[in-house]
Amino acid sequence: MPHDALILASSSPRRQELLTSMGIPFEVHPADVDEDVNGHPQEVVLLLAQRKAQALRPQFPHRYILAADTLVSLDGRIFGKPKDELVAQRMIQELQGKWHEVHSGVCLIAPGEEAADARHAMTKVHFAPLTEDEVSTYVASGEPFGKAGAYAIQGRAGMFVTEIIGSFSNVIGLPTALVRQMLISHRYPFQKEQVV
Amino acid sequence: MPHDALILASSSPRRQELLTSMGIPFEVHPADVDEDVNGHPQEVVLLLAQRKAQALRPQFPHRYILAADTLVSLDGRIFGKPKDELVAQRMIQELQGKWHEVHSGVCLIAPGEEAADARHAMTKVHFAPLTEDEVSTYVASGEPFGKAGAYAIQGRAGMFVTEIIGSFSNVIGLPTALVRQMLISHRYPFQKEQVV
Repeated sequence: MPHDALILASSSPRRQELLTSMGIPFEVHPADVDEDVNGHPQEVVLLLAQRKAQALRPQFPHRYILAADTLVSLDGRIFGKPKDELVAQRMIQELQGKWHEVHSGVCLIAPGEEAADARHAMTKVHFAPLTEDEVSTYVASGEPFGKAGAYAIQGRAGMFVTEIIGSFSNVIGLPTALVRQMLISHRYPFQKEQVV
Repeated sequence: MPHDALILASSSPRRQELLTSMGIPFEVHPADVDEDVNGHPQEVVLLLAQRKAQALRPQFPHRYILAADTLVSLDGRIFGKPKDELVAQRMIQELQGKWHEVHSGVCLIAPGEEAADARHAMTKVHFAPLTEDEVSTYVASGEPFGKAGAYAIQGRAGMFVTEIIGSFSNVIGLPTALVRQMLISHRYPFQKEQVV
């Protein structure tokens, strides 16, 4: 791991996989922040991504720090990670047959810069209509747990998603095209060797 | 492997992963067909998917047979798998900064049914503008080879894709929501146990 590896303020295995797919060396340092925030989905994810990145700034003043927060919203209501089977069941039951939104906030702090750069991505996702049996079977698979909105588009729930509009990696938890753009804006030294 | 596992007429590891993610047991039997077809993208993928499925029908008359074909099209021109670095370079150079289309044909033959059911999915994909260096570095990574349009959205090229409209799994090579719908239409016996 090079000395100047980016700091990823997230313990999510999906975010780590996406960052790996971009060919960017990183170290994982999950930030422990107060996640009890109210507001519009866009405000919530931006604020939480900022909190996470800023929590790590004192420890890593000379490194790129990247943080993200993702949530699902339906008709303005926010769906986070389900606490138990009943909540997961209700979330999927509400999502099926409808469009919903996935919001991510991404925050990047570059070495030597005062300001944190926080940006937002939103993807619209459409679920096919599901039978009660399909919902129960999906929840029983265990996949909904630990995922905002109680589903994983890269997992079994992928076959329930008929259409999306926007960034697909945002739905997994990290909008990689946005992250690339932000890194370029802040002169992140992409290296050719990373891509071999 | 149960006796009645579905037959997948494709050697693509991505299609196998997507079908695995759906929880469907299958056996792989790549079909060897003449792929030299001209026409509109939609016609080409439908015809090739049908050819692949029908090639396996005599060998597996009592099984579900699933075949697919995927290609990329830009302004009506068809981009298949690149033959060498130069072709890959040209394809990515053309795709960057623009919208293009990914077309898949899916063909399902159900046991005891005469007709093959062939359906089409199309996803619009937008690439960020790339520098020549980024294009060269991407081609040098080797990822473009064996992929229609010379890129893998689930790989390093994911960060070049700013937005999609349509099925995301279609861009990987198998539109899983469409496959689910076709299997339901033809009374495929989804089993609860498959989902544990």
